[in-house]
Amino acid sequence: MNIQAMKIEELARLVGGTLSGDPGLMVSGFAPLEAAGPGEISFLVNKAKIDALKTSRAAAFLVPMNIGDLPGVTVIRVRDPNLAGAIIHSAFLATPFRADGIHPRAHVGRDCLIDAEVSIAPLAVIGDRVGIGPRVRIEAGVVIGDDVEIGEETIIKANAVISSGSLVGSRVIIHPGAVVGSDGFGFATDERGCHVKRPQVGIVRIDDDVEIGANTCIDRAAYGVTRIKSGVKIDNLVQIGHNVVVGDNSILVAQAGIAGSTTLGRNVVLGGKAGVKGHIHLDDRVMVAGGSGVHDNQPAGAVIGGYPAIPIRKWTKSAALFVKLPEICAEIKELKKDLAQLLGRNKEDSEGGGR
Amino acid sequence: MNIQAMKIEELARLVGGTLSGDPGLMVSGFAPLEAAGPGEISFLVNKAKIDALKTSRAAAFLVPMNIGDLPGVTVIRVRDPNLAGAIIHSAFLATPFRADGIHPRAHVGRDCLIDAEVSIAPLAVIGDRVGIGPRVRIEAGVVIGDDVEIGEETIIKANAVISSGSLVGSRVIIHPGAVVGSDGFGFATDERGCHVKRPQVGIVRIDDDVEIGANTCIDRAAYGVTRIKSGVKIDNLVQIGHNVVVGDNSILVAQAGIAGSTTLGRNVVLGGKAGVKGHIHLDDRVMVAGGSGVHDNQPAGAVIGGYPAIPIRKWTKSAALFVKLPEICAEIKELKKDLAQLLGRNKEDSEGGGR
Amino acid sequence: MNIQAMKIEELARLVGGTLSGDPGLMVSGFAPLEAAGPGEISFLVNKAKIDALKTSRAAAFLVPMNIGDLPGVTVIRVRDPNLAGAIIHSAFLATPFRADGIHPRAHVGRDCLIDAEVSIAPLAVIGDRVGIGPRVRIEAGVVIGDDVEIGEETIIKANAVISSGSLVGSRVIIHPGAVVGSDGFGFATDERGCHVKRPQVGIVRIDDDVEIGANTCIDRAAYGVTRIKSGVKIDNLVQIGHNVVVGDNSILVAQAGIAGSTTLGRNVVLGGKAGVKGHIHLDDRVMVAGGSGVHDNQPAGAVIGGYPAIPIRKWTKSAALFVKLPEICAEIKELKKDLAQLLGRNKEDSEGGGR
Repeated sequence: MNIQAMKIEELARLVGGTLSGDPGLMVSGFAPLEAAGPGEISFLVNKAKIDALKTSRAAAFLVPMNIGDLPGVTVIRVRDPNLAGAIIHSAFLATPFRADGIHPRAHVGRDCLIDAEVSIAPLAVIGDRVGIGPRVRIEAGVVIGDDVEIGEETIIKANAVISSGSLVGSRVIIHPGAVVGSDGFGFATDERGCHVKRPQVGIVRIDDDVEIGANTCIDRAAYGVTRIKSGVKIDNLVQIGHNVVVGDNSILVAQAGIAGSTTLGRNVVLGGKAGVKGHIHLDDRVMVAGGSGVHDNQPAGAVIGGYPAIPIRKWTKSAALFVKLPEICAEIKELKKDLAQLLGRNKEDSEGGGR
Repeated sequence: MNIQAMKIEELARLVGGTLSGDPGLMVSGFAPLEAAGPGEISFLVNKAKIDALKTSRAAAFLVPMNIGDLPGVTVIRVRDPNLAGAIIHSAFLATPFRADGIHPRAHVGRDCLIDAEVSIAPLAVIGDRVGIGPRVRIEAGVVIGDDVEIGEETIIKANAVISSGSLVGSRVIIHPGAVVGSDGFGFATDERGCHVKRPQVGIVRIDDDVEIGANTCIDRAAYGVTRIKSGVKIDNLVQIGHNVVVGDNSILVAQAGIAGSTTLGRNVVLGGKAGVKGHIHLDDRVMVAGGSGVHDNQPAGAVIGGYPAIPIRKWTKSAALFVKLPEICAEIKELKKDLAQLLGRNKEDSEGGGR
Repeated sequence: MNIQAMKIEELARLVGGTLSGDPGLMVSGFAPLEAAGPGEISFLVNKAKIDALKTSRAAAFLVPMNIGDLPGVTVIRVRDPNLAGAIIHSAFLATPFRADGIHPRAHVGRDCLIDAEVSIAPLAVIGDRVGIGPRVRIEAGVVIGDDVEIGEETIIKANAVISSGSLVGSRVIIHPGAVVGSDGFGFATDERGCHVKRPQVGIVRIDDDVEIGANTCIDRAAYGVTRIKSGVKIDNLVQIGHNVVVGDNSILVAQAGIAGSTTLGRNVVLGGKAGVKGHIHLDDRVMVAGGSGVHDNQPAGAVIGGYPAIPIRKWTKSAALFVKLPEICAEIKELKKDLAQLLGRNKEDSEGGGR
């Protein structure tokens, strides 16, 4: 997939790193240490793994700042080799957008405004009055409802569904089978226990640079907007209820779920399978351990875990003691026995003393 | 989306409420307090929020019984403003069914019995011998297997799959990506540890007025029927195993799961991410807290939580003490120290006394 | 669905059982005890249920070894009636593959190598350079990316997605809506808290005889291969992260999830909703209770549960005591009171003694 070689000097500039070695060296790809071939650049995350670097066939390396000069080895020193690697790898893979146009076997509704430079695959279905910006790619089997707006360079993968009225920003990636804009789950129950549907007339708005995982579901608002803000990354099989707001750059790991009307600040992280109750707020940078259940508002920066979630340090201590409950109970039993004996003896003593 | 104005008198009658104000007032839509425009009707859930009512621009309000007369304000007093709001909002949104017929780019198999008054979207696929009742809407990308029967006014949304032999009632809503009738998960394991598939030859039957969320999965029975009874509401990403029976009007919140052959009574509620073991029974009106794991049969009306789930009051007490385990252990340590000291002193005493 | 009668003698041979009764008896189908009609064969799992056998209308029975002769009843004695039943039921249902070819309304890309004996349904989409072996069935709405290879007799059900580069073995069953080969969830975060996508350039490889449940997601490797080995059975809505390896014949029950780079040995079992952390190893035959969270490596044969998961026996004990935390605290309070009294009395005693 690597298209062309790049000069290492350029790569150093791209990631703001310090080059040590031949600035004219050409590299043709990026790969992990053990997989990199000659002519490729690789990366070393921390000093401890320096031996792996020595056996790698790579032509050059992204290394942390604290790595000294290695004779005959070309390195770029960077603050975060992981990050620099992601940037360089992306640069190698970048290809100019290939506009295949609208495939004759795609179906497009009426009154759409679709940029000329798009790729819409066979058997994609676009509703009425849909707007699609330049360099958007829509894969096979995607269904887009009426009145949807899609920005620039967004990719919607196979069999994803974007329901009517949704607004999708630019450079968004929506993975296969994801559903954006399904009805929120809202009912009112009558005297006989039957549930009357509360109409779900709001929309979903997805800002720029968001990624949405495979088979993830984002419900439209009951009224108003369910909002996924800029830079949010959502993994597979995540559930987002109606009227939820997910703040910029938050990360939701696979199978997490957020109930209706809850709001998340910026850079919140939900671990895998974490669940968040409805109508609460997790402030900026809250981190929730995988598998936890969050029942209450959380202040900025809180790191929490457990069910219900509590500060993670407290939880770790309690969880360690949970395992010891049998021993704890044995100790209590022992204490009771000792005390009973003592009470008995004391009783004897006082009885003895009473004689 | 609001089609026409309705007389407030009619709305009061529709919800069985008591009107106070001009019976001839025309209202043209329904919205929450802060969003309602002039000419719309809104609702007040409880008295505490009465100030929001005063600043709302709405023309009239659904209010609880305990709200007194407000000079110059038209109100309909009802037992449950939430419920009344759902009914009135739905009435405003009700539109006559528009039968678009079978789109030429849909694919329909042989020997189907499809009512003339249906809408089957482009790129929907219908198998052989399928029966579809009047006013059914089938969206793009839906795949319906052979020998499926669908009642009246049912809506099957984009990319949902209804596998062969499934029976779907009337007024059912199936959201995008839902899968009805996939194989149950049943295997027998041989001596070498290999798993032999147990054929799954049963079906799924979905009764009237059921709603099934996006990307939810309902497995067909191994033999016989997996049954979702009338009025059941299922959220997104829920898993229902083979031969499960879900009783009337039960509610299954997102990411809940029910293992094979378990049966639920009427009006059971599973919170989000709740899991229920196979081959057990939850009786009528059982409520399971979100994130819980149910391992045992539950009597009617039980309200349970935790893992394994226990009566919620017990669980709440234990969960509160779980957090205090470090303090509890510190107390035990203290007790041990005191007792040891006491035993030591007593020992001295008795040694002293023995002299 | 039963095609033809089979001689019971043959069936006994098929499952390695011992026949007692007329070897020439013809049976025409397989069903559970209560559902079997005359002329069908049924099965009895354990001796305790022998009365159900007496009222069954079946013509013959698979029974465990410890069932004695029953006058006038034809039985096949086998080590595992469950397993024998699965084998015999499958034999009755086996039908010769019907090759419908490539439907004119399917879309097939360029340079594909597709066996003549396949069934590709209308509105399935096949990418470029795809290889498809004999007797493969691809249902409607399936999307297969470029450069995918599919072995023999594999079934890919409605609306499943197999992304580019995936390798799928023989006799694999992929259920509706499953997504194979979506991007792994990998990002590097810059100083401003923005997440830079780490390109996911690896693939998914699925070996022979694997089954993948509805709406399950299997991510492609960041680099290299996410691997599902031979005979693995995966239920619905399961999440498998990038670079995960699932060993032969493992079983992953519904809504389980495995984070990136974790490896499972052979015959591992994850219960429903179980979650496994990334970068760890569960060795052969590890069993994880439903709803558990596994945070650490596990040795072969470990049976674990809880969050974090610990040996199940320990967990069971601790969980039983969790419920008793209020009583435990009451006991401690009592002990404290007794001890305080004792200390007070002893104090008096020693004060008295000091006089």
